[in-house]
Amino acid sequence: MLLRADILAEMDGPAVAVENATAAGPVVLVCEHASRDLPASAGDLGLSPEALASHIAWDPGALAVARQLRDRLDALLIFQRFSRLLYDCNRPPESPAAMPVKSEVYQIPGNVDLTVAERYARTAAFYVPFHDRISTELQLRTASGRPSVLVTVHSFTPVYFGERRAVEIGILHDDDSRLADMMLTEAASGPYRVARNEPYGPVDGVTHSLRLHALPYGHLNVMIEVRNDLIDNDQGQREVADYLAHLITHALERMA
Amino acid sequence: MLLRADILAEMDGPAVAVENATAAGPVVLVCEHASRDLPASAGDLGLSPEALASHIAWDPGALAVARQLRDRLDALLIFQRFSRLLYDCNRPPESPAAMPVKSEVYQIPGNVDLTVAERYARTAAFYVPFHDRISTELQLRTASGRPSVLVTVHSFTPVYFGERRAVEIGILHDDDSRLADMMLTEAASGPYRVARNEPYGPVDGVTHSLRLHALPYGHLNVMIEVRNDLIDNDQGQREVADYLAHLITHALERMA
Repeated sequence: MLLRADILAEMDGPAVAVENATAAGPVVLVCEHASRDLPASAGDLGLSPEALASHIAWDPGALAVARQLRDRLDALLIFQRFSRLLYDCNRPPESPAAMPVKSEVYQIPGNVDLTVAERYARTAAFYVPFHDRISTELQLRTASGRPSVLVTVHSFTPVYFGERRAVEIGILHDDDSRLADMMLTEAASGPYRVARNEPYGPVDGVTHSLRLHALPYGHLNVMIEVRNDLIDNDQGQREVADYLAHLITHALERMA
Repeated sequence: MLLRADILAEMDGPAVAVENATAAGPVVLVCEHASRDLPASAGDLGLSPEALASHIAWDPGALAVARQLRDRLDALLIFQRFSRLLYDCNRPPESPAAMPVKSEVYQIPGNVDLTVAERYARTAAFYVPFHDRISTELQLRTASGRPSVLVTVHSFTPVYFGERRAVEIGILHDDDSRLADMMLTEAASGPYRVARNEPYGPVDGVTHSLRLHALPYGHLNVMIEVRNDLIDNDQGQREVADYLAHLITHALERMA
C-alpha cells in the first residue's frame, strides 16, 4: 500500500520540475508524461521490466523533445517527475484513466482495488502539486502582463493494439483550435504526416491540461503528439524539435 | 466561474485551521463541515439565504461542540474553513457528493455542469490541503511516538426529507469498530438516544476521513453525529460535549 507518508518520505523534492524559469518567450511547455520513475515503495506495480519501460509508463522521447523546444523557443518547461502509472496528470481524479487498471494490452495489478487512502495519496502527491505549479506560473506571467501560449508535448506508440499507426505527428486541440488550425495550415506542405486530433482527440479526454489551464483564461494552446519511433534518438529528437519550433513560431507570427 | 486563481486571491490563509497545536491528549478532532463561509467570488451559488444557512452548507453546532471537546480532552482540532457547498471534504474527488448538484431538497445551481477547471480548483483549494494537514499532523505524532485517536465531529438535521429523526447521537464507524463498540456499550445506559451507524453509515460514503487517516495506520477512530437541535445554543453544546467527552474518555480508559 502506497500512502501519503510513504510518498512524502521518498520524494527528493516536489513532483513537479521547472526548467528555464527566466524564459523570455511566450511558450509554456508542459510534459505530463515525462518520466517513468516510481518511488521505491511503489515497487513494480506487478509489471514486467518491459512494461515499466514502455509507453504505458511514460511518453518516451517527449521530455527530450520538450527540452529541445525549451531551448529553441526560450520557453518555460514544466514536467512531472514521476510515472503516469501512479497518476496520469493529464486526467482528473474522477477519471478511471487517472489511475488505470489497464493500459493498452497491459493489466496494472498495482492499480487494482485502490483504497481511498491510496487514491488520495496519489492525487495529493502527483496531480495537485503539478497543476498548481502550472496554474501559479501562468498566473504570475499574466499578472506581469506577459502572454502565455500553452504547448503540451506527448509521444505515442507506433503500434497500438497490434495496429501500425501511419500518422507521425498529431496536432490536438479542444474547443479553442486557433493555434492548432494555424499549425495545421503550416504543416500541410511539410515533411511529416501531420493530422488533426490523431491518434487521440478531445473525446478521449486527452485535452485535460488544455481545459484546466488554457481555455478558461483564453491562452493560445495546443497539444502535440509525436510518434515515439521518430524521437528514440538524439538526431530524431533534434529534427522533430526543429520542425515543431518552426511550426509554432510561424503560426504565432501569423497570428500576431 | 470560480477558478484556482480566484480562490487563492480571496483566501486569507489556508483552507484548513488548526487549534490547540500543543495538545497533550491522544484525541485528534476533525471537523470537515465546520463552516458555511464562501469566498466572495463563489457568490451565492444560486441559493437562498435560508439554504446558505442550512445544514446543506455546514454542520450547525459541530465546530462549537468540537471546540468544547478540544478543551475537555486537551485535543488537537483541525477544521475546514469553507463551506461544503464548494467541496465536501468528507468525500473523495471521484464522488458525485464531493461537489453535489443536489443536497436533500435543495438544488445547488452553482454546482451544475462544473468544468474540469472548476472541479480542479475546488479539489486543490479545499480537499487536498485539508487532508494533507491532517495527514501531516498524524504523521508527526506517530514519528514522535505519540498515539492518535481520530474523532470526527458532525451534526445532522432533525428533519430530513420531511421525516423527523428520533436518534439524537450517532456513533459511526467503518471496518474498525473498536472505539465505536466501546462507546456504544458505555452509551447504552445514558441520557441520549444513541445509535450505531445512524442516521448515516459507511455505505453512504460518510467514513471517508476515517478511511483516509485512521484505518490504514491502525489509529483508533470514530465518527460522531449529533442532531443539530441539541446543539443550537451554548448550553446544549456544553451538555453534549460533556457527555461525549465522558464517552470517549471512559471508552479509551477501558481499552487501555
